[in-house]
Amino acid sequence: MHFLTLDELTVDDIYEVLHQAEALKNHKLLSRPDLYAVNLFFENSTRTKCSFEMAQRKLGMNVLSFDAGTASISKGESLYDTVKTLEAIGVDVAVIRHSEERYFDALKDKVSISLINGGDGMGHHPSQCMLDLLTIYQEFGSFKGLNVTIAGDIRHSRVARSNTYALKRLGANVSFSGPKAWRDPEIGDVSFIEMDQAVKESDVLMLLRVQHERHAFGENFTKQEYHNQYGLTLEREKKMKKNSIIMHPAPVNRGVEIADELVECERSRIFKQMNNGVFTRMAMLQYVLAKREETKHELIN
Amino acid sequence: MHFLTLDELTVDDIYEVLHQAEALKNHKLLSRPDLYAVNLFFENSTRTKCSFEMAQRKLGMNVLSFDAGTASISKGESLYDTVKTLEAIGVDVAVIRHSEERYFDALKDKVSISLINGGDGMGHHPSQCMLDLLTIYQEFGSFKGLNVTIAGDIRHSRVARSNTYALKRLGANVSFSGPKAWRDPEIGDVSFIEMDQAVKESDVLMLLRVQHERHAFGENFTKQEYHNQYGLTLEREKKMKKNSIIMHPAPVNRGVEIADELVECERSRIFKQMNNGVFTRMAMLQYVLAKREETKHELIN
Amino acid sequence: MHFLTLDELTVDDIYEVLHQAEALKNHKLLSRPDLYAVNLFFENSTRTKCSFEMAQRKLGMNVLSFDAGTASISKGESLYDTVKTLEAIGVDVAVIRHSEERYFDALKDKVSISLINGGDGMGHHPSQCMLDLLTIYQEFGSFKGLNVTIAGDIRHSRVARSNTYALKRLGANVSFSGPKAWRDPEIGDVSFIEMDQAVKESDVLMLLRVQHERHAFGENFTKQEYHNQYGLTLEREKKMKKNSIIMHPAPVNRGVEIADELVECERSRIFKQMNNGVFTRMAMLQYVLAKREETKHELIN
Repeated sequence: MHFLTLDELTVDDIYEVLHQAEALKNHKLLSRPDLYAVNLFFENSTRTKCSFEMAQRKLGMNVLSFDAGTASISKGESLYDTVKTLEAIGVDVAVIRHSEERYFDALKDKVSISLINGGDGMGHHPSQCMLDLLTIYQEFGSFKGLNVTIAGDIRHSRVARSNTYALKRLGANVSFSGPKAWRDPEIGDVSFIEMDQAVKESDVLMLLRVQHERHAFGENFTKQEYHNQYGLTLEREKKMKKNSIIMHPAPVNRGVEIADELVECERSRIFKQMNNGVFTRMAMLQYVLAKREETKHELIN
Repeated sequence: MHFLTLDELTVDDIYEVLHQAEALKNHKLLSRPDLYAVNLFFENSTRTKCSFEMAQRKLGMNVLSFDAGTASISKGESLYDTVKTLEAIGVDVAVIRHSEERYFDALKDKVSISLINGGDGMGHHPSQCMLDLLTIYQEFGSFKGLNVTIAGDIRHSRVARSNTYALKRLGANVSFSGPKAWRDPEIGDVSFIEMDQAVKESDVLMLLRVQHERHAFGENFTKQEYHNQYGLTLEREKKMKKNSIIMHPAPVNRGVEIADELVECERSRIFKQMNNGVFTRMAMLQYVLAKREETKHELIN
Repeated sequence: MHFLTLDELTVDDIYEVLHQAEALKNHKLLSRPDLYAVNLFFENSTRTKCSFEMAQRKLGMNVLSFDAGTASISKGESLYDTVKTLEAIGVDVAVIRHSEERYFDALKDKVSISLINGGDGMGHHPSQCMLDLLTIYQEFGSFKGLNVTIAGDIRHSRVARSNTYALKRLGANVSFSGPKAWRDPEIGDVSFIEMDQAVKESDVLMLLRVQHERHAFGENFTKQEYHNQYGLTLEREKKMKKNSIIMHPAPVNRGVEIADELVECERSRIFKQMNNGVFTRMAMLQYVLAKREETKHELIN
């Protein structure tokens, strides 16, 4: 049993994980030292990796250290053989971030270790998606009819893709905003609006990080030009709807996609999202491990 | 008390560790949070490092993180001073992998911390050797008269060297196979046979990894040529003796020393070896720690 | 509540931490799995990082792994945003080493996570200072009137600076020794003496590491010339006062600031310092956490 994309989950499954995450916020510490987790991050990360490790420790699991830089992968070993090795060693669950889209397709039916997708290239990022859903759900109690605008580099964002599909399934109206060059023709049936319109209409304004790794500023616009034309400026924030919220998966480029002073403003849920991330990931781990134990019982009976 | 090479152990000692490893497979979890371990790996490793860490955690030990890349070693500190530092800090046992052969000779009589050799250059690799012995012992119940062929780069392999000496002491017949250029004139009294003969005669066919770090293919043969002439092809496997087994210390070069499809075939014990590695290392840790506690009692009484 | 420099502590506070460190040496293990620590080391370290981790584990805390090399800091995230992220994730205390002097000024009033300074550029290194004080206090029972000479690269040493201020506040007489070019005009009112005089007069001879990272030998002198003119040679050690001790923050350049054979000689407290480091850091952690819990109570009542 894995947790790879939200596409595998029914709407009921999604709500089950959200409710479980809420419940875990008030839960006392668990202790499962018989369970072993490992976090295989082949791409840089602070937030997601630390958050998963915190979630594992709060569940009382044993967390094995794994440094992708010094692992045998650098001797040319395949991801499959690395995962099979960890399985043979006795690891129960592996969280993997890898630059290859759908890297998990080559693994999921061949391993008994449980996989949780921590991000696959420009594909999916289900734990980010789940924590975003939790943050919206806490705020509005429902997704039906909510106006959500996702703004920025849609084309290269696994967050944009995962969130759009999930939010639409849950009944929200999703719009995109940002430079034309960064639109993604593959995500159909989503309207594009200017930021000036987005701030007026959105209940949720979800800003994406401008990815320096993928883009060079200066090609089409400077940081300041991006901020003025596509970013959430101090002026635009004043025009936002009452009770609307600002979200961002972080790390934030302060002064680019969002004005520095707005990162911790009253309607910002940016650090709330990070806090929710721990409980969301605890719920995802429990969801996978519960299914895993069911399967074991079935095999025995 | 250290565990540096198998040469220090009597045959009785070896059997003691093997029996202990077997017993640990069915043991419940131990808890020794008063014991502190650290793993100093100055060469890349997934398997050995993770396996030792898993063993330490299954014994309930505290495992300190240590990143050789960012340690003071890079400020020019000697291995001796690093180990003495860890000793002063309160570490009980250090597992070390280092590129220098017999690095431990400069340490073993001067430190009170217990050392376990995780591999020294082209010298020894006792935990790999012990887990190989356990895998063979589980299969055949004895070493006496068994035909074992070790195939591949004998000269640069610490596995070949350690295993040959240990297997001969335990009564097995050892042969080598592979390219002439990779024979090791220093290991005397072992016959060389072709792979076509090896598959017919061996009870245990132990394949070694072709080490890309040390060799460049293309000098004498391509990967395909190596596979055809010296590797375990699909055709050769069919000629193997009934009940004979395939072993490999991994990581495997699929399609070079062994055909891709054979890595997980019925007679392959490759992932079994990895699984045995955890219990073997638990037994090695217990062996060292028991001797350590005996010594402390002697000092007190 | 943080622990950033010794300047924030009263003399009574300093003695409180020293007494607590002494008490912890004989204390049984504590268990605070509800507390989460993280060690953010943006500069190389074995001793300080391992020592803090050991202290955290001996207090029974949960230690999250954090690799500065692969963190989002490399995506351009600020230290502030990294620390706020860890706070949002639920971390209670962060130990930080950073090359920027007084990096903590931009953080200390804005975060609720407790910060412990593990070294800031050429600024402060309070845990090293506290463990040096503990080592001297254990030896002499008081600081009043003690002659302490700090020898070596005064100008680039955060140890020299922190120790000088603290020792003077506690009543010791501090002198400096070493090359003229490495004197620090900013630390006023400390006399400079030659090493030949220092060995005769000092109760505590505190040697500093010649920092290869900052200096190139060969500019003004070779290693041998440094040793002969400014170092503690075998001959000079013979002229040291009865009951005087040798200290060094390590890593040591054997044969440069101190003769190889003297590192573990009878009057050397070098490895004792490292051992004291663990208990000192436990006391610092407890000091910060106690203040933190007081503050929480105040907020509730």
